Amino acid sequence: MFEKLLLSKFISEYKKKTKTSAKIFAKSAKLHVNGVSHNIRFYEPYPFVVKSSLGKNLIDVDNNKYTDYWMGHWSLILGHGPKVVKDSLKKQIEKSWMYGTVNEQTVKLSEMISKAVPVAEKIRYVTSGTEATMYAVRLARSVTGKKIIAKIDGGWHGYTSDLLKSVNWPFSESESSGVVNEEKIISIPYNDLEGSLKILKKHAKNLAGVIIEPVLGGGGCIPAKPDYLKGIQEFVHKNNALFILDEIVTGFRFRYGCLYPTMKLDPDIVTLGKIVGGGMAIGVMCGKKEIMEFADTTGKKKSERSYVGGGTFSANPASMVTGYATLNSLKSKKSIYSKINSLGDLARKEITRAFDGKVAVTGKGSLFMTHFLQNGISEIINSTQVSKCDTQMLQKYHFKMIAHDGIFFLPGKLGAISDAHSKADIKKIVLASENF
Amino acid sequence: MFEKLLLSKFISEYKKKTKTSAKIFAKSAKLHVNGVSHNIRFYEPYPFVVKSSLGKNLIDVDNNKYTDYWMGHWSLILGHGPKVVKDSLKKQIEKSWMYGTVNEQTVKLSEMISKAVPVAEKIRYVTSGTEATMYAVRLARSVTGKKIIAKIDGGWHGYTSDLLKSVNWPFSESESSGVVNEEKIISIPYNDLEGSLKILKKHAKNLAGVIIEPVLGGGGCIPAKPDYLKGIQEFVHKNNALFILDEIVTGFRFRYGCLYPTMKLDPDIVTLGKIVGGGMAIGVMCGKKEIMEFADTTGKKKSERSYVGGGTFSANPASMVTGYATLNSLKSKKSIYSKINSLGDLARKEITRAFDGKVAVTGKGSLFMTHFLQNGISEIINSTQVSKCDTQMLQKYHFKMIAHDGIFFLPGKLGAISDAHSKADIKKIVLASENF
Repeated sequence: MFEKLLLSKFISEYKKKTKTSAKIFAKSAKLHVNGVSHNIRFYEPYPFVVKSSLGKNLIDVDNNKYTDYWMGHWSLILGHGPKVVKDSLKKQIEKSWMYGTVNEQTVKLSEMISKAVPVAEKIRYVTSGTEATMYAVRLARSVTGKKIIAKIDGGWHGYTSDLLKSVNWPFSESESSGVVNEEKIISIPYNDLEGSLKILKKHAKNLAGVIIEPVLGGGGCIPAKPDYLKGIQEFVHKNNALFILDEIVTGFRFRYGCLYPTMKLDPDIVTLGKIVGGGMAIGVMCGKKEIMEFADTTGKKKSERSYVGGGTFSANPASMVTGYATLNSLKSKKSIYSKINSLGDLARKEITRAFDGKVAVTGKGSLFMTHFLQNGISEIINSTQVSKCDTQMLQKYHFKMIAHDGIFFLPGKLGAISDAHSKADIKKIVLASENF
Repeated sequence: MFEKLLLSKFISEYKKKTKTSAKIFAKSAKLHVNGVSHNIRFYEPYPFVVKSSLGKNLIDVDNNKYTDYWMGHWSLILGHGPKVVKDSLKKQIEKSWMYGTVNEQTVKLSEMISKAVPVAEKIRYVTSGTEATMYAVRLARSVTGKKIIAKIDGGWHGYTSDLLKSVNWPFSESESSGVVNEEKIISIPYNDLEGSLKILKKHAKNLAGVIIEPVLGGGGCIPAKPDYLKGIQEFVHKNNALFILDEIVTGFRFRYGCLYPTMKLDPDIVTLGKIVGGGMAIGVMCGKKEIMEFADTTGKKKSERSYVGGGTFSANPASMVTGYATLNSLKSKKSIYSKINSLGDLARKEITRAFDGKVAVTGKGSLFMTHFLQNGISEIINSTQVSKCDTQMLQKYHFKMIAHDGIFFLPGKLGAISDAHSKADIKKIVLASENF
């Protein structure tokens, strides 16, 4: 009862300060399904409407300022509109933003990625992460001649039909009507090697590959145990299947490069996106030369090649220069990583303290997420546990910060710290947590 | 023999003037599969590397200038880097290029599209055309509860696994290894109503929808006969399936709006892209309210909803403003259409004349494509006929223009005229054709 009153207090506080947003969102709701162009961007009573962003801040159409931890779906490691990236982009725009052809800008970005990511012996740019994982799966099936792809319970690799299974709780229920591919996808429990191998063994003969995020993103901000990944990799390689790491969230997030080398892993294909595009549309599939060359179409019959895109916008020069400028910044100022990683450590420690042990704050480096423990859950190592926590409370916690504290997490999602954030910002979250 | 000599002459002419491109492309070939990020962007001996573009021109790294008819995969109806779009984009960049949230810019673009495209009662932005058609297919399956999707022999809707069939000749052969969905896709002969209905009738009970481009793009620049589309639509609606028009190429290409209203068609879903993004990454699925609302996730069980993206970059403000500025230009200066459509008529007429009837130049409005007739083919109304023409000769013809005439068509592909082109440009193509 008290809780309900509090929530209604925050809702009226929110409505009072977001009147213009309310009007524009009413239009948006007429024009768009769910009022948005990505289901997760909607929250009750309505999402505020952004006018501009800079550094750590989102500014809405009512001129409210929010310290942002959503950070463009966790893409903006340098903050919103960083000057060095902006300058590169403006320079590129003078030379145009779309060629539809081979360009120099692509070669420059690829040289940078291939030096930082050892497995990127060959690279293919696409337009989104959803496309990158679709191609990774297709390539694995082409290389192995097998059909079954395994993913993680709670793993999120975009909306591709090829991986649309076991994303949200309950994992055993279909994610969507209208999908036709589900029987070719199997799902394994995260961080449970024995349980995973038991399932994989049943499908060993038909297994084309396993795709895993080394830190579950949408699934609850949960790092994989190195031994878990090593065990899966060992099984996969013994059974002539491919080990695919989806580093769209984690690539260049914790260090200059991917996460997998720190765990001494040997993936066949890695997908990248987000940070390597500097905020512009990008997806990357890269991998070992002998694997990637199955996508070479030269002199092959249609049915022999692995037919991999490309698209109208793949390797467009605008995305290439924003990606390059971002990576170049990260490379020349590696102290960014020690800074944001330690801010993440601080956030985990202090938010846990603020809630007096009633939450678990998961994550790694600059990614963190708060889980309100209940149902006997005391640690979070997989998405099943995440879904058993009080996810309603998390929504309320995030909404209260939006309404009252000028802090924006996409309700229910993990937060990402950027170079634009400071210790004082983390303290503001901690204070807001104490007051919740 | 003579022909071979001529070709080798043009190749050496090309190599002489593209030395820097050769060097950069050698790097690109090491870094990327096929050296490119879209298979079709490669041609022998190597594609030139673009440095910048403006108006009608692509400029390569050796400072060669090409009058461009590829025009960013036919996206750039105002030419490369048009001032009015550039100014909008620069202004937006000052407010940042990525928010990851609801924004005003999206509402503005959607208001414009919904006024110009009657069927766009609800809109969902995604990142690419490949994503848009993937969702259209998923939605059709959700709405109807059926699984089979029909497409056209030679129809191209991007690389989505859900439509990767019968794209290239021979249509009966798989497009790729590693695809798992083919038995859910059936293919029908373009512009052959009787032949198409015969196939559709066999699958009527399981038919979720038919997807068709009203002018085949990748399949050879061939307009659909209005009676063909009407006949398919009638069958589809009688059998409780959806009629999906893929207007990614044709939307806003011939008139301010889509092509379908001129043919008095009543599609359920329309996909858009290219022009409506003004050169920045975009895909659009729009349609009738009662259809689109199957994608509404509010209060639905997972297995009941049609789970449609969204993605990190969907409705990003940069794409929204370049799209808006482009449509606004087209709206306020509708004479663009009469200009570029009549330039297209001129190109079709004069190129046919230049080749003395040995070619058929297909297309509509500002889209045109030359086919070198052989094997008894005398008209081009489907992709089977396109593939029986002398496609090698088309490649040579296009390559000769690149090497010798400063004119760029992506070898083998159709050309798109923009507002930056003039009558004199068309005459240059005609002259280059006469000299071929």
